[in-house]
Amino acid sequence: MALSDSSIKRIALTSGEPAGIGSDLCIQLAQHELACELVIIGSPTLLAQRAKQLGYYVQINTFDPLAPRKYASVGHLTVVPIELAVAAQCGQLNTNNSAYVLKTISEATQGCLNHTFDAMVTAPVHKAVINDAGFAFSGHTEYIAELTGGTPVMMLETPGLRVALVTIHLPLAKVPQAITAARLRSVINVLHHDLTTRFNIANPKILVCGLNPHAGEGGHLGREELDIIDPVLADFRQQGMDIQGSLPADTLFTPHYLDSADAVLAMYHDQGLPVLKHKGFGQAVNITLGLPIIRTSVDHGTALTLAGTGKADLGSLQYALQTALTMAHNT
Amino acid sequence: MALSDSSIKRIALTSGEPAGIGSDLCIQLAQHELACELVIIGSPTLLAQRAKQLGYYVQINTFDPLAPRKYASVGHLTVVPIELAVAAQCGQLNTNNSAYVLKTISEATQGCLNHTFDAMVTAPVHKAVINDAGFAFSGHTEYIAELTGGTPVMMLETPGLRVALVTIHLPLAKVPQAITAARLRSVINVLHHDLTTRFNIANPKILVCGLNPHAGEGGHLGREELDIIDPVLADFRQQGMDIQGSLPADTLFTPHYLDSADAVLAMYHDQGLPVLKHKGFGQAVNITLGLPIIRTSVDHGTALTLAGTGKADLGSLQYALQTALTMAHNT
Repeated sequence: MALSDSSIKRIALTSGEPAGIGSDLCIQLAQHELACELVIIGSPTLLAQRAKQLGYYVQINTFDPLAPRKYASVGHLTVVPIELAVAAQCGQLNTNNSAYVLKTISEATQGCLNHTFDAMVTAPVHKAVINDAGFAFSGHTEYIAELTGGTPVMMLETPGLRVALVTIHLPLAKVPQAITAARLRSVINVLHHDLTTRFNIANPKILVCGLNPHAGEGGHLGREELDIIDPVLADFRQQGMDIQGSLPADTLFTPHYLDSADAVLAMYHDQGLPVLKHKGFGQAVNITLGLPIIRTSVDHGTALTLAGTGKADLGSLQYALQTALTMAHNT
Repeated sequence: MALSDSSIKRIALTSGEPAGIGSDLCIQLAQHELACELVIIGSPTLLAQRAKQLGYYVQINTFDPLAPRKYASVGHLTVVPIELAVAAQCGQLNTNNSAYVLKTISEATQGCLNHTFDAMVTAPVHKAVINDAGFAFSGHTEYIAELTGGTPVMMLETPGLRVALVTIHLPLAKVPQAITAARLRSVINVLHHDLTTRFNIANPKILVCGLNPHAGEGGHLGREELDIIDPVLADFRQQGMDIQGSLPADTLFTPHYLDSADAVLAMYHDQGLPVLKHKGFGQAVNITLGLPIIRTSVDHGTALTLAGTGKADLGSLQYALQTALTMAHNT
């Protein structure tokens, strides 16, 4: 057995919901030079079918963990084979394949934990069909964190903007009670730590949104800023962190604030992500911080209507892969 | 008395918080040609002081409602005089002047109701100091609506994007209970009506956000979409309105959706306005729909630290004035 060249990073890519564009993206990615070894986690049967449907010839090899690391080569895919329960039809969700989808994620996660992989990248899954199949699943981020331990923090990045979230996939009515001093401290610690260690930012500058409109307007539009958020931020500032807030979300995302910031921390999903996806459409990556492993993801959904058409946009997956690779090299 | 030329629109401009940049903006505006008559509502003493401080000579005349309409001329300001309770210091809020601030707004509103003015534009006020003075005041929009009647709907516009809100200045914890079918119907009726009548859009296409992240993800992240929002939208569609939703807020603000839309309806303040102000920084206008009068506003705050420095950006006020004028001509 040859010794592995550890300077070649090996990245796992889960192929996502089989009725969506995940397999298309894997096939399209195989047409490009990559600066890493790539290992797809998914069904070789599905990948071969989808390649044919898209008019590409792709040679599919089974991953051998004992073989030396090597850069991915154009026209080839290396796969950890996991088989579907039932054949996948483009655009047709099927609860019978939900266990398969979860298995691709858990295999990639295990492979990162045991250092077979340096990072994992995930193609989109369809939460509702996984829930409909009877699995409690509120998102990749939470699911992977259950497998690895850690405090997962979701952060999206597009060139020029990073947005992390204090709460993620919660009904809006449950957000205010979830904004506790303990959660804020934990999220800010993770964000600061990972910006330093995984992104090589020496003293990251973080802008924090208020929970309420106008960051509560001095208590006139809600007291969470005065009672919970601002005291936590003051503590962190006293410890030497460069952290500003709480700031009104509708003024924070302007050049005056953003130009000097490394990341924005939003209190909830729809406070921070609409701006990021507006700014970074087609070139955004979803990063899970706070885990013992590196995980990035595309920022888009399964795009059921585009599966098999060849019209899926590879931009976000390429950015997700590049980000995972950079993080792996930094770590 | 000469007959007024009603093709010349006459627009009132309230000068806003006296410690902020409102007066600066009035003085700066007086240096430009305008396609309307402009009447400032505020303190002539303050305007004269601020002009001197900024190094401009501006001739200040008292407004005569019986004089014929005429275009504003460069270097002149016409003013409905209202005096401060105490002299204003740049950057120093004073609760003693809060009644003055409210009076400038009510005077402009009355003048619109009695057709002295065709529209009103408001410079920024500071809500907290008005509240601290003992007045219940949650914003211009709500205050003006109390004076005029009507169902106020706040809409912001920047070139390429309009965002209207179902709820405005509410603590986040009170938002979910405020999303009722009755309120949604009323807001959508106003939005559709005013886009048609005041913006000359024949059959406006409206995109509606869900309340919850991912628009509730089929009920897995909240049920307000299924139980309240979607049935209302289905009713409107059946009546022939071009209305789409509910849609996830973080995918709706992307070209695929926005390119064909006339307006986005967000459920709450920080779901819709961060994107709009990010996109339209320095060139956005706040429009109050649903009133018997036309009212627009700048999209920024009082900028206390910039008052008297000459560094205030006139862009948003110019856009607000231009929008009010266009709406007045359409109406």
